[in-house]
Amino acid sequence: MKIKDYIEKLDSYIPGFQPDSNDEEVIKLNANENAFLPSPKVFEALKNLEPNKLRLYPEARSEELRKAIAKVYNVKSSEVLCGNGSDEIIGLIIKVFLAEGEKLATPYPTYTVYKSSASMEGVKCVFVKTDNEFKIDIPGLLKENAEAIFIVNPNAPTGVFLSIGEIKTLLNTYDGLLVIDEAYMDFCTEDATMIKYINEYDNLIVLRTMSKSYSLCGARVGYCFACEKLIAYMDKCRDSYNLNYISQTIACAAMQDEVYHKETVKKVIENRRYLSEKLIELGFEVIPSQTNFLLCKPPKNKIASEIMNELIKVKIYIRYFSSEMLDDKLRISIGTKEEIDKLIKSIRDIL
Amino acid sequence: MKIKDYIEKLDSYIPGFQPDSNDEEVIKLNANENAFLPSPKVFEALKNLEPNKLRLYPEARSEELRKAIAKVYNVKSSEVLCGNGSDEIIGLIIKVFLAEGEKLATPYPTYTVYKSSASMEGVKCVFVKTDNEFKIDIPGLLKENAEAIFIVNPNAPTGVFLSIGEIKTLLNTYDGLLVIDEAYMDFCTEDATMIKYINEYDNLIVLRTMSKSYSLCGARVGYCFACEKLIAYMDKCRDSYNLNYISQTIACAAMQDEVYHKETVKKVIENRRYLSEKLIELGFEVIPSQTNFLLCKPPKNKIASEIMNELIKVKIYIRYFSSEMLDDKLRISIGTKEEIDKLIKSIRDIL
Repeated sequence: MKIKDYIEKLDSYIPGFQPDSNDEEVIKLNANENAFLPSPKVFEALKNLEPNKLRLYPEARSEELRKAIAKVYNVKSSEVLCGNGSDEIIGLIIKVFLAEGEKLATPYPTYTVYKSSASMEGVKCVFVKTDNEFKIDIPGLLKENAEAIFIVNPNAPTGVFLSIGEIKTLLNTYDGLLVIDEAYMDFCTEDATMIKYINEYDNLIVLRTMSKSYSLCGARVGYCFACEKLIAYMDKCRDSYNLNYISQTIACAAMQDEVYHKETVKKVIENRRYLSEKLIELGFEVIPSQTNFLLCKPPKNKIASEIMNELIKVKIYIRYFSSEMLDDKLRISIGTKEEIDKLIKSIRDIL
Repeated sequence: MKIKDYIEKLDSYIPGFQPDSNDEEVIKLNANENAFLPSPKVFEALKNLEPNKLRLYPEARSEELRKAIAKVYNVKSSEVLCGNGSDEIIGLIIKVFLAEGEKLATPYPTYTVYKSSASMEGVKCVFVKTDNEFKIDIPGLLKENAEAIFIVNPNAPTGVFLSIGEIKTLLNTYDGLLVIDEAYMDFCTEDATMIKYINEYDNLIVLRTMSKSYSLCGARVGYCFACEKLIAYMDKCRDSYNLNYISQTIACAAMQDEVYHKETVKKVIENRRYLSEKLIELGFEVIPSQTNFLLCKPPKNKIASEIMNELIKVKIYIRYFSSEMLDDKLRISIGTKEEIDKLIKSIRDIL
């Protein structure tokens, strides 16, 4: 038995640390989870689960959920696919549309799952650096002649976004596959979603997740939009029962509660402004963010990783990346007002 | 944008039909689901879910569940991997251990997901016919010189099993990857599991699922056993959060309720004997089964597919395969005594 060379060499994705969630003192701002609970309709749906449906296979196509998503986003349900988190969909896209030895281009910095998913299929991932303000370099991405381009918009871990016009410029000259991962789009105050263009560009896939604005990380539900033809290829290649009955049910409940969703998003955006102001007051440099996190640089002479380590001592978790362009910065997920106040107080003590 | 040839040509797996589960008249014996509800501990765990954990990422390694499984099967938790149904694990095994153009050998007939999963990665799936009594042809499998051999044991859709001795004969001369899928092993009255040999053979993976004996199809939980080295490769390549919080939690509850599990398995085995006797009384030829279903051939002159279609009219669903060796037979999942009585009555009416 031999192991493929590229599997042998592979570094896997390292998720943010999960501290003991039963410890009520813990403030967890390291994984871009939502500070607020999911919709009360989710808990209602959990109470009303049908016992018999646990022993039966779930609906194979997640059809009810596709319909609920289609209604909210004003598309056809045949233009929607649901997955076990958007990570499953990312892997599926690479498996279906890219071959071993082909190339995927993505900005640097960005979500590192693209690279690990690509590596697992023997697909080469090339990074194209953003500029000093983390602006994505579209001509640079095009120059790579890659079979696919993956862009998180707004980008993670920077929070910086591309406009519809900029993405259209790319699409108008690119005939490879363009994946726009809109995991954080609901927190963007500009209209920048590409969902409405899936039929204009048959090489466009728009990814979404219920982990961020819908507060459902724990349920693992991702979804994507594309023209019917691309969705059909992906449907053919996904696991037949890729989404369990319970996640389908509660995701449906969350998706249908549009009022609660809007309110939650509004609160996150408010708190983002609040956290940003407080950090600036402390002398941080804050990259303008359209997401549920802030990337920021501590005031002069303060070392980012040390601040993170000091915060762990008071059970506050934020994220530090030891890589280029990021190693002098911290990524802080948007918490509740109370969490933000505690964080700011602790940072002030450390400084 | 181009589509890979083998994706273009791919036929996807066709799951058994799911009738409306709210219709209480429906008797569903077409997908090898368990006739009995999951453990009461599962429902207790559902009531006690922590709301906060829905908004947080789940434990990435499903560590608690691995530990619970390790305890029941008397292995180390580092020898266990959990997946979003065993289908995810099958795809993962092919992705990690097989390369495009390589070969996977499997008996015919068997679980058709191996072929679809292989095809998606450009891996060739070759079938080696069982004999007239559906006995698996081990020399035939070896002769294929395939990089991997996949065997469901006991086999589906036949119910026929291989002994430990027979599998060891194979392992002693085979240095490719051997995957033994023990989805139905709990219903086998012989000791035939290969789990205890994972450290003796470093090319052996044993697959299990919570969909069958644990009645948790709806939760999508599969698991597998192998030596630490193979598990580590698979861990590196799976999605970081491949199992949602709720499924991890309820699977743990079900795994720990060994008493309930044993009782359920006993009832299924009893009902298997009951159904078999009744079918034989009606003149059916029944293949001896070690699973939670029976493959059987209707009495002379009766056409299998017609019986299936007649049964649909009275809302009883069983499975028919139009392929070689199977097209004169029916596959019937083991139901409750009441369901079996209704089925037998309806078949008698049809005959």
